[in-house]
Amino acid sequence: MAIKLFVTGGTFDKEYDEIRGRLYFKDTHVQEMLALGRCRVPVVVRTLMMVDSLEMSDQDRRIILDNCRHCPQQRIVLTHGTDTMEVTARLLGEAIRDKTVVLTGAMVPYKFGSSDGLFNLGSALAFAQTLPRGVFVAMNGRCFPWDRVVKNRAAGLFEEREGK
Amino acid sequence: MAIKLFVTGGTFDKEYDEIRGRLYFKDTHVQEMLALGRCRVPVVVRTLMMVDSLEMSDQDRRIILDNCRHCPQQRIVLTHGTDTMEVTARLLGEAIRDKTVVLTGAMVPYKFGSSDGLFNLGSALAFAQTLPRGVFVAMNGRCFPWDRVVKNRAAGLFEEREGK
Amino acid sequence: MAIKLFVTGGTFDKEYDEIRGRLYFKDTHVQEMLALGRCRVPVVVRTLMMVDSLEMSDQDRRIILDNCRHCPQQRIVLTHGTDTMEVTARLLGEAIRDKTVVLTGAMVPYKFGSSDGLFNLGSALAFAQTLPRGVFVAMNGRCFPWDRVVKNRAAGLFEEREGK
Amino acid sequence: MAIKLFVTGGTFDKEYDEIRGRLYFKDTHVQEMLALGRCRVPVVVRTLMMVDSLEMSDQDRRIILDNCRHCPQQRIVLTHGTDTMEVTARLLGEAIRDKTVVLTGAMVPYKFGSSDGLFNLGSALAFAQTLPRGVFVAMNGRCFPWDRVVKNRAAGLFEEREGK
Repeated sequence: MAIKLFVTGGTFDKEYDEIRGRLYFKDTHVQEMLALGRCRVPVVVRTLMMVDSLEMSDQDRRIILDNCRHCPQQRIVLTHGTDTMEVTARLLGEAIRDKTVVLTGAMVPYKFGSSDGLFNLGSALAFAQTLPRGVFVAMNGRCFPWDRVVKNRAAGLFEEREGK
Repeated sequence: MAIKLFVTGGTFDKEYDEIRGRLYFKDTHVQEMLALGRCRVPVVVRTLMMVDSLEMSDQDRRIILDNCRHCPQQRIVLTHGTDTMEVTARLLGEAIRDKTVVLTGAMVPYKFGSSDGLFNLGSALAFAQTLPRGVFVAMNGRCFPWDRVVKNRAAGLFEEREGK
Repeated sequence: MAIKLFVTGGTFDKEYDEIRGRLYFKDTHVQEMLALGRCRVPVVVRTLMMVDSLEMSDQDRRIILDNCRHCPQQRIVLTHGTDTMEVTARLLGEAIRDKTVVLTGAMVPYKFGSSDGLFNLGSALAFAQTLPRGVFVAMNGRCFPWDRVVKNRAAGLFEEREGK
Repeated sequence: MAIKLFVTGGTFDKEYDEIRGRLYFKDTHVQEMLALGRCRVPVVVRTLMMVDSLEMSDQDRRIILDNCRHCPQQRIVLTHGTDTMEVTARLLGEAIRDKTVVLTGAMVPYKFGSSDGLFNLGSALAFAQTLPRGVFVAMNGRCFPWDRVVKNRAAGLFEEREGK
């Protein structure tokens, strides 16, 4: 069965606004990235929102949770800003036991030459196919259970932490 | 423990020779790709050869097999040209039972803007961490056991085939 | 008045054929390059042929000459493979005295990340607007009159030579 | 004689700060861009400052003017943010009569895949070699005298305006 891919925005999808000289959201690049990866796994993409994860509200997170719960697919990839990825992972992890959900994102926007986005998307789709039920964060080749991950903001990377 | 990454060349690593106007091999781009993906999984890279897989000899394949067998790591990613990836996968699959080996490659050289290489490398590293022992081909988001994969040359993609 | 841009192929426009694993011609990338440069000079593009300049025939060169002569524009940019750029420049230079024609190309295909194509196209359009009547080769920031240029094949660059 | 290339920052040179998730200045990319264009014109690069042109002070502009006046080269390219490019051009245009100075920049940072920077740099170097003495703004294939250019901020492009 297909993998569901929910888009929520994040660095992944930031564009450069050449009129205003700043980063902003327009459309998701996920379809373009799947095409570039010549992805042959069936993936059903749905954009839930396009937000910076620092501005993601409780209401936004509830929308994400509802969609993960109620979609027919058992395997889900969720693109998400890195700043609060662990917060959303925790909410989902406590509520979802019967599906495999993999959160991923990027440290650098996909449209920048130096983005890690395509690498992360490739690994997230692989983890989503092979991991057991549960909620995970997949970034930069690694994968963490939802209750054992923390973003090290100073270093700009995700690390394992003691489980609760 | 670290993942071992053996490089054998293939489309992945082809460069454009601007003097002669043709594709050729210089050095592998794997280290550069791991840096771009900001890969945080420990990966030990070793270049075994830099060949087009159409020109890979039996002797070359024996070198690959020996290296997979004798390296201390249990989890191995092998970059390989797509044209004979299934041949090497079969040789390794029949001989290696106690390690996880994932072959990957690219349909388009990494140095081309339109390459699937970074996506494939991300997914291969994820599959190598999560799959059980055995030999697999990971291309374009999918993963096949060594005895159930065939390259559809007309379409330029890998497909599942009946197991032997 | 607009600049006429004639496309003849060359390294500029080579694509990677992922089925056959080799370089080939499909469509020109010139329109995409003008869009990327956000080019605001009116440019009228016409593809005359899509050939490797090593395979350009006398007949092909006559077509190029006819088109340069008979188009209404006074200022022309011509994209061309680098291997025989000086041959075509000579033919045009001896025949065209009343227009400004600038030949340009690339050492590396535009679709490769490392291409000089966009830089060359930007400079060729500038030279075409500012140079007097005559035929010129514009490559890698430099501009040569048709009768004083030679490609140094070993070094992969264009050099000035003694005029005839 | 060589072309002098003064760097002042601007969109051209903005990088993505992956720790803070915003654009910033580190080093100039001009040398990398000249290498990508395989530029064969002798160019002497000097970084005067790395600022957003909205934050360029009168003192900064005086430094630019002094450097243009006192460098030994007769032909100068100046990279500059687009927001106040016309202000600096006016200051230079009123003061410099005996050299050719070409201001250029980019609507999108060079490090973004969609940047016009390489195209603009190629054309600026060509204009600097062929235009007579005076101060010009070269953007997106066009070139304007310093006293007849205005940035249309709503459209994100440079236009000709009535001379004073």
